This record gives sequence, structure tokens and C-alpha cells, in this order.
Amino acid sequence: MPNNIVMTITQRSAYTLLALLLAACGNGAPQEDRRGGIDTGKIHRWKMVTTWPANFPVFQEAPEMFAKNIRVMSNGRLDITVFAGGELVPALQVFDAVSQGAVEMGHGSAYYWAGKVPAAQFFSTVPFGMEQKGVEAWLYHGGGLELWNELYEPFNVIALPVGNSGVQMGGWFNKKIETIDDLKGLRMRIPGLGGKVLDRAGGNPILMSGGELYTALERGTIDATEWVGPLHDLRLGLNRAATYYYYPGWHEPGAELELLINRARWDSLPADLQQIVKQAAAATGAWTFSAMEYHNSRALKELSGKKNVQVLPFPQDVLQALRSVTRQTLESEAEKDPEFKRVYESYLAFQDSYQPWHRLTSKALETE
Amino acid sequence: MPNNIVMTITQRSAYTLLALLLAACGNGAPQEDRRGGIDTGKIHRWKMVTTWPANFPVFQEAPEMFAKNIRVMSNGRLDITVFAGGELVPALQVFDAVSQGAVEMGHGSAYYWAGKVPAAQFFSTVPFGMEQKGVEAWLYHGGGLELWNELYEPFNVIALPVGNSGVQMGGWFNKKIETIDDLKGLRMRIPGLGGKVLDRAGGNPILMSGGELYTALERGTIDATEWVGPLHDLRLGLNRAATYYYYPGWHEPGAELELLINRARWDSLPADLQQIVKQAAAATGAWTFSAMEYHNSRALKELSGKKNVQVLPFPQDVLQALRSVTRQTLESEAEKDPEFKRVYESYLAFQDSYQPWHRLTSKALETE
Repeated sequence: MPNNIVMTITQRSAYTLLALLLAACGNGAPQEDRRGGIDTGKIHRWKMVTTWPANFPVFQEAPEMFAKNIRVMSNGRLDITVFAGGELVPALQVFDAVSQGAVEMGHGSAYYWAGKVPAAQFFSTVPFGMEQKGVEAWLYHGGGLELWNELYEPFNVIALPVGNSGVQMGGWFNKKIETIDDLKGLRMRIPGLGGKVLDRAGGNPILMSGGELYTALERGTIDATEWVGPLHDLRLGLNRAATYYYYPGWHEPGAELELLINRARWDSLPADLQQIVKQAAAATGAWTFSAMEYHNSRALKELSGKKNVQVLPFPQDVLQALRSVTRQTLESEAEKDPEFKRVYESYLAFQDSYQPWHRLTSKALETE
Repeated sequence: MPNNIVMTITQRSAYTLLALLLAACGNGAPQEDRRGGIDTGKIHRWKMVTTWPANFPVFQEAPEMFAKNIRVMSNGRLDITVFAGGELVPALQVFDAVSQGAVEMGHGSAYYWAGKVPAAQFFSTVPFGMEQKGVEAWLYHGGGLELWNELYEPFNVIALPVGNSGVQMGGWFNKKIETIDDLKGLRMRIPGLGGKVLDRAGGNPILMSGGELYTALERGTIDATEWVGPLHDLRLGLNRAATYYYYPGWHEPGAELELLINRARWDSLPADLQQIVKQAAAATGAWTFSAMEYHNSRALKELSGKKNVQVLPFPQDVLQALRSVTRQTLESEAEKDPEFKRVYESYLAFQDSYQPWHRLTSKALETE
């Protein structure tokens, strides 16, 4: 998944200025009428910034649809304008912009804020973590959402789940991975915890923006890269850079997407509009995940038909070794940060008790 | 899954009387104000009937939460009262009640109307069909939802997806199933297409309501039964009736739940309330599926700890044989009904193209 979308980042600055401007301008039209204690006349004009490039398939379409649906549901009373990463605020400053009230809303994924809040990564995805259905069972019913919001409370930010990427691909490799030793010295673009695991396994994780990947692969500056999944990888043309082995992912088993809301602005919304936002977030989530499943299945089919692409699973002992290194990596991170430890323990306890059901049902229909 | 919830069915009648009463009473408060062309003063008082027993976990909680959320979002302008199966309309007459306008909404699952619309079963679940993520990718993005609504158009009914049961359990067996021959002569409570497949495999499918299952198992009137999954099976106490082998399901890989809406009443709603209903349906769906995953994983853990219960997968050759018999069964049904054939072809084409992605990703993290 794109972790540093440097290509969309403009200058650092604009959003502090914006905060001042917005504060000066006030917010919305004069009050018209009240009914049932709710001010039904006031129009709330909000801004939402995302971490995605303009026209980024599904991930950027989703917040735009979300805003449109809310406009219809609220009969125009909550009017959200959506800005892609870099259009108003640099992609990786979305959290700060929402936190400081420069904008009311953000759309991204929690692991982008790992530098500020390491524990946030569990609310996105972690290596060998849970897939969408497990993550959402934890968030909605297993106490995950409460933990997530406790974590963001000091920043005056509220988080809501708003979709999931589905299982991401483990990446494009210019050689076949037969044993864990094949990862030693491998120069691979892989950010975040996945990168830390690769490093611990002897590989050489490299940070690089999406815009640089094609050239780096073609020129052999890197030996391998991950990006998102078939849909986005195909759009970036990664399959055209060389001859590849294309593996399913172990490092990002389903990144949950997040809606960020400035708490003070949230508190200023009447109850009906708050509920409209909550339900729209969940509905957008359902649309987003099924869009990813749909487009990824089609793109995989297209990629599988290419002569220079071989799609295959990692060997069992490679996965086993990576799983073990992942456990060490997470435990090492937990030692450094008490918040990380607390969320890790909740996540792990849930995953352990969910796993038998997941295993039983995911094999229920398997006939080969 | 409960296919004939006879225990909740009262007398056949009441809803035709209701239709007359409601028509006579008119609908809602006087108009108060209009803004942006939308009548924001009118209160729409609707009734929703479900196919579920009162207090049926998750499935009956979901429509109640749905109605409550809509009341908040609409600031009381759409006020839906929810009735469990039998409270106002017998569970299996929900579709007719919505179709005839006796009530505005229904909540159930499409295979309950198989007698009237055989093709409807694909919008619920079919043996060896797709799981939740595949089904919803087909519905939201692969043309499924449009087909579903074409199917219901002659009945003046609109359908929206509103959740999924997750993989259901294959049932409780008083003997171990080692080969397909062990199904021969087996007296098993299993309704619908699953029952037809069992019949074709030499078994003896029996129709029986949930309320009768415990006694029938305990007395040996039946050799096996399916119901829903760990959560509901445990609530019904099925594990206490005898000593069991408990298998994951092949016959209902994830029943999609449906929201039914009377078309004329739908057309009478302003655009904002229509959108509120649509988004609430999708949001309720996300909550429902993750609630099922959460509670089923916990209930499975509890059941697995019981001395008289052995949880295990069906042997590969049994599944293979059932899959082949399923194909014959579906093809035979398709020959009888052109609509069934048309929907089957769409479903199968989608499933075939989705399968490689599903397989690849569902094994991505597997290490044993």
C-alpha cells in the first residue's frame, strides 16, 4: 500500500494558514428554522482532505461518494468538499490538519501516523494480522473502536472505520523466492512494519514513493516492490517494468481505512447529522471493500494472462519464518511504547480467539 | 438457517385487514414546511415486518437498530416500527405483505420466497456458492443487485442487501461422516437447495421448524440437523440433545439478508429519506456481518470445549461429491425455470472469475 505518497505532497505549510482563514470566515448560512430541538436550517460547510492522489481508484472515489451521499441525506445541510492529497494539505499531514481544526475531516489509513502514534498501525493493518472480517469484528464488537478513539483523544480527533483494502499483494520480485535466505540482501520497497520485518529477516527495505517505482524496477535499483494489489499495481504499470514473480501478501492482510473528524467540529453537529455521518461511513466501507474485491479479482485475471508475470504463493517455510520474525518485531515495538503494547495485547487476544472460527469456515468449501 | 420458522407463525390473515386499516388511516402528520423542494415537515410512519422470532440474536436486533438509526438521521421524519415474525404478519408471508402494501418494509432472506420466485435463492445463498465478500462484490459491482430488483419488479418490491450471516454450519450429526455413502438414508433436517442436494446424494431431507429440533434429535426422530451457526445453535441448545459431530457448512456459505420495500411507498419518499434508507441498509449490513463473525467465533470456542461435541471438517471426497451433486441440482433447477437459469448464469460467471483471487488471498497467510 502506498505509505509515502510523496508524489502528491506539495509544500508543508498551507494548512495552518487555512485554519486561520476558516476561523475568520465562520461557518455556514444563517439559521432558518428549528424543530425538535434541532437547528434544521443551518448549513455546515466542511472540508475533507485525503491521503490519496486525485483519481486514485476506489480509495479517492469513496470519500467523494461519501460526501455526495451525505449532501443528499442531509438535504444540503452538511456540505463536505473533498480534496485529494496535496490539493489543500500534503497527504501525510492529513491527521495534523484534522487535529488542529484546519479542516473538519480526513480520509486515509491509520498506519500513516505511525511516526506520531505507533499503536495506530493496528487500526490499519499489521503483518500476519487479521483480514477485513476479523478486523471489523474486533472494531465493531470486540472493543477495537473504543481503543482507537482513546488513542486519538489527545489529538482531538475522532476515528471511524470507512472500508478496507482487502488482502494486499506481497509484491513483485525479480527472482523466485524459494527459502527465507532468498530475502537476504533483497532491496525491496516496503514501508512500515512490513519493512521492519524484512529488515530483521536480512533484507534491505527501501522507502520510495509510488511515482518512482516503475523506473526503479526497470533500472534494477530495487529487486522487488509491493504497492497495493492487482487493481492499483496494474494501473501503475508495474507488470511492464520487467519479468516478475507476483506473490500474495503477508505484510498487509487488509488495511482498514479511516475517517478522521475534528472533535470540536463534531460536537458542533446536531444529533441527526452526526448519525448521518456515522452511517454513511459504514455504508461507504461496505462499498469500498466490495469494490476492491471486484476490481482486484478482475485485475488479477488480466495480470495472470501476461507472459512475464507468474502468480504464485510464498513457500510454506518462508511464510512460517516471516510469521516468526513478525512476532519478534511486534514484541520489540511493544517494549518501546506502552500504548503499542496495550493495543497489541487487545488485538492479539481477539485474533487468537477468532482464529479457530476463521480457519474452520475459510476451509469449509475447499475441495482441492 | 431457519427456513420455516413455524414456531413464530400465527394465523395467516391479519395483514390484509391491516392493509385496509392503514389505507383508511392515511399516513403521518400534516405538512409543516418545505425547503429545497423537499417536504421536511411530513412524518412518514412505516411498518416493517421480519422473518425472525422476537429476540432472535443479531438478525432481529439488526432491523430494530436500523429503524432507530433512521429515526435519528431523519430527525423523526421517517418513523419505522419493527415487528418480529408472527407479531403482525406470519414470518413466511413477509414478502407478500410488502408486495401488497400491507406494510412498507420487510427484513428476511431471499430464499424464503423460493416457492414463489425460485431464482431469488441466489440473492440469499446457494450450496457451494460465494461467501459474503464474493456475494457483495457481485451485488454491488457485478450487476447482481440490478438482477435482484428486476426479479422483484412484478411484485412491486424493491430489494436492498442488509447484511450476511457468514458461513453457516453444516450441522450436527450423530455419526461421523467418512464417505458420501454415510449420507445415504440419513434423516436430516435441511431445507431448500441443500435439502435437494442431500436428496440427490441418497439422503432423506426433512422439513422441521426450529422449535422441534431439540426433541427430534434427542428422541432420534432425525439423525442430523443444520440450523444457523455456533451462536444460534448454542442458543437453541442443540449441543445438549446428544453426542455430536459438528461440521462446517457447504450448503449455505453465507446467506445475504434482504431489506424489502414496497415500491409505491418508496416512490412517495423524498430523495433525502430514500438515501437515508439506502445508507442505513448498507451500514446495518456491515454491523450484522461483523456481529455474526464476533458471536460465532465466541460460541464456537464454547462448543469446542464440550465433551460431547467434536468439531471437524468434512472429508475432501465427501465435499467433492457434494459439489458435483450440487452442480447437477442447480442445472436441473435451471432447466425448469428460465429466470433461475438467467440468474444462475450471472452468478456462476461471476463466481468463476472471482475464484482465483479468493483462493489466492484466502491462502496468503496460511502457515499450516
